[in-house]
Amino acid sequence: MPTDISPLAPKSYAELPPVTGVRIETAAAGIKYKDRTDVMLMVFDKPAAVAGVFTTSKCPSAPVDFCRSNLTGGRARALVVNSGNANAFTGQKGRAATELTAKSAAAAVGCSQDEVFLASTGVIGEPLDAGKFATVLDQMAASASGDRWLDAARAIMTTDTYPKVATRTAQIDGVTVTLNGMAKGAGMIAPDMATMLSFIVTDAAIDPSALQAMLSRHVGSTFNAVTVDSDTSTSDTLLVFATGAAGEHGAGTIHSASDPQARSFSKALADLMEDLAIQIVRDGEGARKQVEITVTGAASAKAAGRIARSIANSPLVKTAVAGEDANWGRIVMAVGKAGEKAERDKLAIWFGDVRVAVDGERDPDYSEAAASEVMKQEEIAIRVDLGIGRGKARVFTCDLTKAYVEINGDYRS
Amino acid sequence: MPTDISPLAPKSYAELPPVTGVRIETAAAGIKYKDRTDVMLMVFDKPAAVAGVFTTSKCPSAPVDFCRSNLTGGRARALVVNSGNANAFTGQKGRAATELTAKSAAAAVGCSQDEVFLASTGVIGEPLDAGKFATVLDQMAASASGDRWLDAARAIMTTDTYPKVATRTAQIDGVTVTLNGMAKGAGMIAPDMATMLSFIVTDAAIDPSALQAMLSRHVGSTFNAVTVDSDTSTSDTLLVFATGAAGEHGAGTIHSASDPQARSFSKALADLMEDLAIQIVRDGEGARKQVEITVTGAASAKAAGRIARSIANSPLVKTAVAGEDANWGRIVMAVGKAGEKAERDKLAIWFGDVRVAVDGERDPDYSEAAASEVMKQEEIAIRVDLGIGRGKARVFTCDLTKAYVEINGDYRS
Repeated sequence: MPTDISPLAPKSYAELPPVTGVRIETAAAGIKYKDRTDVMLMVFDKPAAVAGVFTTSKCPSAPVDFCRSNLTGGRARALVVNSGNANAFTGQKGRAATELTAKSAAAAVGCSQDEVFLASTGVIGEPLDAGKFATVLDQMAASASGDRWLDAARAIMTTDTYPKVATRTAQIDGVTVTLNGMAKGAGMIAPDMATMLSFIVTDAAIDPSALQAMLSRHVGSTFNAVTVDSDTSTSDTLLVFATGAAGEHGAGTIHSASDPQARSFSKALADLMEDLAIQIVRDGEGARKQVEITVTGAASAKAAGRIARSIANSPLVKTAVAGEDANWGRIVMAVGKAGEKAERDKLAIWFGDVRVAVDGERDPDYSEAAASEVMKQEEIAIRVDLGIGRGKARVFTCDLTKAYVEINGDYRS
Repeated sequence: MPTDISPLAPKSYAELPPVTGVRIETAAAGIKYKDRTDVMLMVFDKPAAVAGVFTTSKCPSAPVDFCRSNLTGGRARALVVNSGNANAFTGQKGRAATELTAKSAAAAVGCSQDEVFLASTGVIGEPLDAGKFATVLDQMAASASGDRWLDAARAIMTTDTYPKVATRTAQIDGVTVTLNGMAKGAGMIAPDMATMLSFIVTDAAIDPSALQAMLSRHVGSTFNAVTVDSDTSTSDTLLVFATGAAGEHGAGTIHSASDPQARSFSKALADLMEDLAIQIVRDGEGARKQVEITVTGAASAKAAGRIARSIANSPLVKTAVAGEDANWGRIVMAVGKAGEKAERDKLAIWFGDVRVAVDGERDPDYSEAAASEVMKQEEIAIRVDLGIGRGKARVFTCDLTKAYVEINGDYRS
C-alpha cells in the first residue's frame, strides 16, 4: 500500500485548542496494524448533548446500529473509535463486540452503557476482538487529556495519508465558544450518507434536538456533497458533542436551531463541516487533484444534485481530470446519463473561467491552450449550466488515478 | 494508448457467411485515425425491415436523433457508420453533418434519405467533417460485397482491442436462416441503454414491428446486462436488419413476435445478442477478467437488477477483482448502498462455488485458499443470495485496472 502523503495534504495542521468538558486518549490495541495507534477514547466528564447522522446503507455495521439506538437518549459520556476493523457484517459476533466494548468503556469512565458511542473503520467481515479494548480502556480514561486532537485524528486513519482536523469559534450571548472536529475518509466515500467517520466537539450548551437540527441542516451541502468513488460505506458516522462547559462563562443554552443566538454557532458548524469534508476529498485514495463541480440552471435543486453527482462519479470524467485533459465531451455524457431533464442545445460548460461549450456545441471562442492551463492546476472547478431552470448544486470530488487502483487492488491481503 | 490485444480476446474469430440481401464495404476516410479504416457502409439492394434501440442519454448524438426519426418508416437501404468522431454535442453542425451523409449515401445507393441509417463513435464535441464521406461513398456502394464482416467490425472500432463478430442460424418453416452480428464497445459502457454500436443482419423475412418486439424483449438480458464503467454513451445504437431474402427459399414472413414460427429465430437472436454483449465486456478498457454477477432471492427482479449493477459498477469491487482479492466485504458494501431491500443477517455470498459468507457473517467453513484460487481465474462468477424473495438478475462486467486509467487519461489528446 502506498504510504506517500497526498500532494493535496495541508501544508500544516490546524492547532486545536482544548474544549472544556472533553478529554482524549489514544492507544495501540493491536487490532490489525503494527507500530501505530488504532483506538481513540473521548471522555465527557459531564454528560454532553449528542447528535448524529449515519450511513444510508441497508447493511450497516454493528457500531452504527449501536449508536442509532443510544442516540435516542441524546447524552454521551464516552466515544470509542477503532481503526483496522469495521465490525461490519459480523453477525451476532459483531453485536457481542459492541456490547463488550460499551461495557468496558462504561466501566472505565463510570457511566451507563447507553451513554457510550462507538465507531469502527477498516476491513469488513472480519470478527473484531473487542477483548483487546477491554485491557486498555481503563488506563486510557485515566490518562486522557484535552490536547490530543491530532493524535486522535491519526488513530482513526485507515488508508488516509494525513490526519484531518479543523477548528472554529462562534459567539453565544457574547461568549466565545469553540468547535473542534476531526474526520477520516480515503475510500468508500459517496454522497447520500453521513460521511466516513467524523467527530465534532463544542463547549457550547445546546439541547440535543437543536444540535441534531443544525447538523442535519448542514450535512447536505458538506459531507453529503463529497464523493471519492461513489461507494457508500457500511460504517459512515458523524457525531457532534456539546459539553455545555461554556455555560459557566455565560453562554446560554440553545434550545432551538432557529434561536437567533444559534446563528453564529450554526454558521461555524457548517464552515467546520465543509472544511473537514473537503479534507476528505483531498485525501481520496490516489487523489492528485481536487475537483469542485457546480451545476446551475437545472429544473430543480434535486436535479442539479443528481447531475453534479453523475459528473463527479463518472470514471471517464475522473480519469480525464487525472490526465489533465479538458475533455468536456465526457461532461456532456455524464449530464446525459443522469436521467434528469436536460436540453442538449441549451447546455454550457466551463473549466475554471474558460467556457468550452455553449448552446449545445463547442464554444466558437474556445481556446484549447487556456483550458489545458486550467487542467494543470491542483484545484479544478467545473461548471455546467443547464439553461432550463433555477436549480443549483455543488459537489466536491477528486480525480481517478492509477494509485486508486493500486491501493484498492490489494487492501485486504 | 495501449495497443495490446486484450488477454480475454477470442482465440479465433467466428467466420460469418454471407447474408443474402446485404453487401458491405469499408474505407479510410481520414476522420481521425491514420492508416486504418474508419467508415463502413452496408447496402441493402432491396429494402430491409429494420428495428433499433438507442441510448437513454438526455444528450443523444445527432446520428441517434437521425435514426430515431427514420426508424418510424421501418425500412432500410443503407447504413453508414464511422469511427473517430461521435458527432455528439455538435449542435446545428451535427445535424448538417447527418444530412450531408444521408444525402451522399442515398445518392450512392439510389434510395431515399429516410431509408438511410447512421451511427458515429469516437470523440464527443468535435465537428464531424461529413464531406470526407461524400467522396468515398459512391465507390464503396459499387464495390461492396457479402464477405466483409470482419473488416466491417474492424472499421467501427475505437479503443476496442479486437473486432467483435458472431453468427447464428435459425429455422423458419424448415428453412435455415442466418443471423450475423457485429459490435464495438470498450468504454462508456453501462446498462439502461442499448449498447455501444451493434448491427445485426438476417436474411429472414420479418415485419419491422415483430423484429422490434423481439429486439426489445432480449435487450434487457443481453446488452443492457453489461457494464464496463457505469458511463452511458450519447451514441449507443443497436440496429437489426432483416433482408427477407430467405423468403425466396420458402421461409414465410414473420408478422408477430409471438408467432410459433418466430421461436427459433427469437432464440437465435437472443443468443447472438448475448454473445456480442459478452464480447464487449471482455474487451472493456483495461479488462483482464470477465465477471458474471448473479443476484438471487431479492424482493423483485428489478431490485435484483439494481443490486447486481451496484456490485458490477463499484470501483472497489472491480479493483479487488483486478487484485485477485476475494474481498467479499466490498460485495456487502455494494449490496448495502444499492438502496433496495436487504436483510444483513440473511445474506449469503459465493465466489465461484466457494461460499464465503452466510447468515450475515463469514462462512464458518470459509477457505481463503479456495476463494483465492477462484480469483486467479480469467472468468469469475460472483453470486449473492438476499434470502428474502424470488427476484433474480444477472449482469456481466470486467475488472478495473490501471490500464483503464491509462487509456482514459489521454484518450482525446
